[in-house]
Amino acid sequence: GLRRFLREVHYADLAEVLPELNLAQRIKIIRMCEPSKAAAILYQLDRSEVKELLEGLGEWRAAAILREMSTDDAADLLGEMPQEERERFLSLMGAAEAEDVQELLEYGPDTAGGIMTTEFVSVREDVTAQEAIEILRATAPDAETVYYVYVVDKENRLVGVVSLRELILSAPATRVADIMRTEVIRVDVNTDQEEVARIVAKYDFLAVPVVDARNRLLGIVTVDDILDVVEEEATEDILRLANIEYEGRYFESGVVKRATKRLPWLVALMFGELLAGHVIANFSATLSAITALAFFMTVMAGGPGNLATQTLAVVVRGLATGEVNSRAVLGVILGEVRVAVIVGLVSGLVLAGIAYAWQGQTVLGFIVGLSLALSMIVAAIIGSLVPLVINRFGFDPALASGPFITTLMDVCSMLIYFGLATFILHRYLI
Amino acid sequence: GLRRFLREVHYADLAEVLPELNLAQRIKIIRMCEPSKAAAILYQLDRSEVKELLEGLGEWRAAAILREMSTDDAADLLGEMPQEERERFLSLMGAAEAEDVQELLEYGPDTAGGIMTTEFVSVREDVTAQEAIEILRATAPDAETVYYVYVVDKENRLVGVVSLRELILSAPATRVADIMRTEVIRVDVNTDQEEVARIVAKYDFLAVPVVDARNRLLGIVTVDDILDVVEEEATEDILRLANIEYEGRYFESGVVKRATKRLPWLVALMFGELLAGHVIANFSATLSAITALAFFMTVMAGGPGNLATQTLAVVVRGLATGEVNSRAVLGVILGEVRVAVIVGLVSGLVLAGIAYAWQGQTVLGFIVGLSLALSMIVAAIIGSLVPLVINRFGFDPALASGPFITTLMDVCSMLIYFGLATFILHRYLI
Ligand SMILES: [Mg+2]
Ligand SMILES: [Mg+2]
Ligand SMILES: [Mg+2]
Ligand SMILES: [Mg+2]
Ligand SMILES: [Mg+2]
Ligand SMILES: [Mg+2]
Ligand SMILES: [Mg+2]
Ligand SMILES: [Mg+2]
Ligand SMILES: [Mg+2]
Ligand SMILES: [Mg+2]
Ligand SMILES: [Mg+2]
Ligand SMILES: [Mg+2]
Ligand SMILES: [Mg+2]
Repeated sequence: GLRRFLREVHYADLAEVLPELNLAQRIKIIRMCEPSKAAAILYQLDRSEVKELLEGLGEWRAAAILREMSTDDAADLLGEMPQEERERFLSLMGAAEAEDVQELLEYGPDTAGGIMTTEFVSVREDVTAQEAIEILRATAPDAETVYYVYVVDKENRLVGVVSLRELILSAPATRVADIMRTEVIRVDVNTDQEEVARIVAKYDFLAVPVVDARNRLLGIVTVDDILDVVEEEATEDILRLANIEYEGRYFESGVVKRATKRLPWLVALMFGELLAGHVIANFSATLSAITALAFFMTVMAGGPGNLATQTLAVVVRGLATGEVNSRAVLGVILGEVRVAVIVGLVSGLVLAGIAYAWQGQTVLGFIVGLSLALSMIVAAIIGSLVPLVINRFGFDPALASGPFITTLMDVCSMLIYFGLATFILHRYLI
Repeated sequence: GLRRFLREVHYADLAEVLPELNLAQRIKIIRMCEPSKAAAILYQLDRSEVKELLEGLGEWRAAAILREMSTDDAADLLGEMPQEERERFLSLMGAAEAEDVQELLEYGPDTAGGIMTTEFVSVREDVTAQEAIEILRATAPDAETVYYVYVVDKENRLVGVVSLRELILSAPATRVADIMRTEVIRVDVNTDQEEVARIVAKYDFLAVPVVDARNRLLGIVTVDDILDVVEEEATEDILRLANIEYEGRYFESGVVKRATKRLPWLVALMFGELLAGHVIANFSATLSAITALAFFMTVMAGGPGNLATQTLAVVVRGLATGEVNSRAVLGVILGEVRVAVIVGLVSGLVLAGIAYAWQGQTVLGFIVGLSLALSMIVAAIIGSLVPLVINRFGFDPALASGPFITTLMDVCSMLIYFGLATFILHRYLI
């Protein structure tokens, strides 16, 4: 029957179908699952759903489930609850587990401390391989990963690591101190989660130990959580590049919330575009003299905007993957400027030819071709400089979003275009 | 001395400093490393560098290193070599290893087959936990992961899986058949790598088995490679959203290559912008009648362009994470349109007020406000419809890049803006 089905089906699959049931059915199912499975399911659900479910399950059962959850996941869930509710759950959870979770809640959510779990296996240096495996056997049901055993001294300072692979490959009587690696790559508890992800990816780790300033082992970050970090950071970058600051599932939130999240910046950017319009207004005499200038305004705003968007994308992504060294700023900008010189000259020539063919005026061809090339060079500077500067000041370079960069470029392009046209008009045509 | 340093330093760290040395020094260092370490280093290097190094090392040593490489990595490297060179290396590598690599080369590089390794541990159902651990001990040095043991029948069909964790927790005499899980989540060899990544992330796997159509176990995909896939796909999406098709390290390639990769599309998009310019030219009588229309052209092109960019970003990302169900297309579009109605009405009203205050013409305020709101609604439709349609036809929705969408929007916005202005001019002002 249902009970057997619930025992056999994978928690991740159950978590996927659960949202399609009504609240009473969901509560019934969670009640019928073992607490550890219920815990795993709950963590996979959307945060708003978890809240409903925990309330529906009743305090005691909810606390039992939270106790079964790995400490990092419990801290994630409790961290998003209101203070009062959080404290109520912590008091119901049992002292030891609650203390660990409480400690995890102290760390920033985007740091190593915020994503680590306290459920790891550690042994002292003088145990044997055989004893270490016994300790593993005893603690395995609670540990997040049994694939690394961390070796600590009597003050809980991290002195070595040995993998389960190495333990089973060693003679049972070997001392752990003789097989452990002492050059343990570790991260500080305050390290940014993106840096932790880079380290795990670089060394192909299944987990990385987290220590405090005095090298005391506080927890481990496991690769499954790193995979989530990489996904989350990619989402953040893609949305920020489009000038959206959004957490959680976008499409599951209401239309009004989505609109109010996006509106302020769209209006702010409109004022930026109005600045570009102001430039045009200031040059309206030139525009009246050569009406055809208006026909090339979309090209003049769009082309450099596209190039700036591309430059922004490669720089932001390069900074994220570590390909762009934040110290080699000048080289990055100069490289992109040289790209823009090539791209600008070619497209400027093409546009000049088109303008001449279309409107039959040599001088118009000259104006549009040259100002497109110049604007593209400026686009490369702005598209690379702005994110690099933002990064230098310790902020996320993706905040230099495409819409912001293209709006800034629209102002610059209009200045260059009408400035050049006015100069040539006054100097050569009048 | 150097030799000791090379033995102790982590391969990933060595791979990071190697590019700073000259070719002779690099060759010297690789020669001094053990073949397995040399293999690990080589795989971390940039593809162009690997080529140089393999040539510099001499054929025999190069083949020895390739033999030590895990088969998925060797296939990756050889897959990028010219046919002739590849065959030469394969013939030097040794029959068994070369055969595995040859088979891996048959699969598409972005499929499960393209990222799997053939170095896994499998046992038959009738072995005991103790025997399975013994088999692990014997094969571990070559296996990519020892943390899962796959159970196969006599035709090599996958029938179960048991984790090393479960093996060490079981009594030594237990039969593997009694502790294995038989509901093994597996992927077909032709599954797209993004789908494989979603499965590994969903179930928090360290590896997932890969089978053919007849359920025969062909290989495994390990989580370290999944982490690379997620990084690679995020890079691909971010660059494609900026209309760049680029593989490998962007900043390490020459300026000319970067420019020629980006130029064709930038020129193509310029023609799109010229189409928008053509719209303006067709309405030049209207523009002459109300010169101030020109002052709002950047707002009229920029605002809806920004909104379309945002819509594109949330839809593309939602499709990538699975949050947007590709069957629920209509709901996604309607939701975004409703967002645009709110955003469009508010920013249209603001713009109308500004236009009236700036130019003192009620009718101008009406024209710019209404056409901004209308264009934003169109922007929501285009920004969601285009990636969803591209996705429906089996292509990457990120190919509906921001520059393409904003260029398309520029044409639409100019049509709406000047169309509405002309209509009102003829109907009410003349
Ligand atoms: Mg967990
Ligand atoms: Mg973050
Ligand atoms: Mg946390
Ligand atoms: Mg890696
Ligand atoms: Mg975890
Ligand atoms: Mg980030
Ligand atoms: Mg590998
Ligand atoms: Mg491959
Ligand atoms: Mg996961
Ligand atoms: Mg691999
Ligand atoms: Mg993709
Ligand atoms: Mg792909
Ligand atoms: Mg634009």
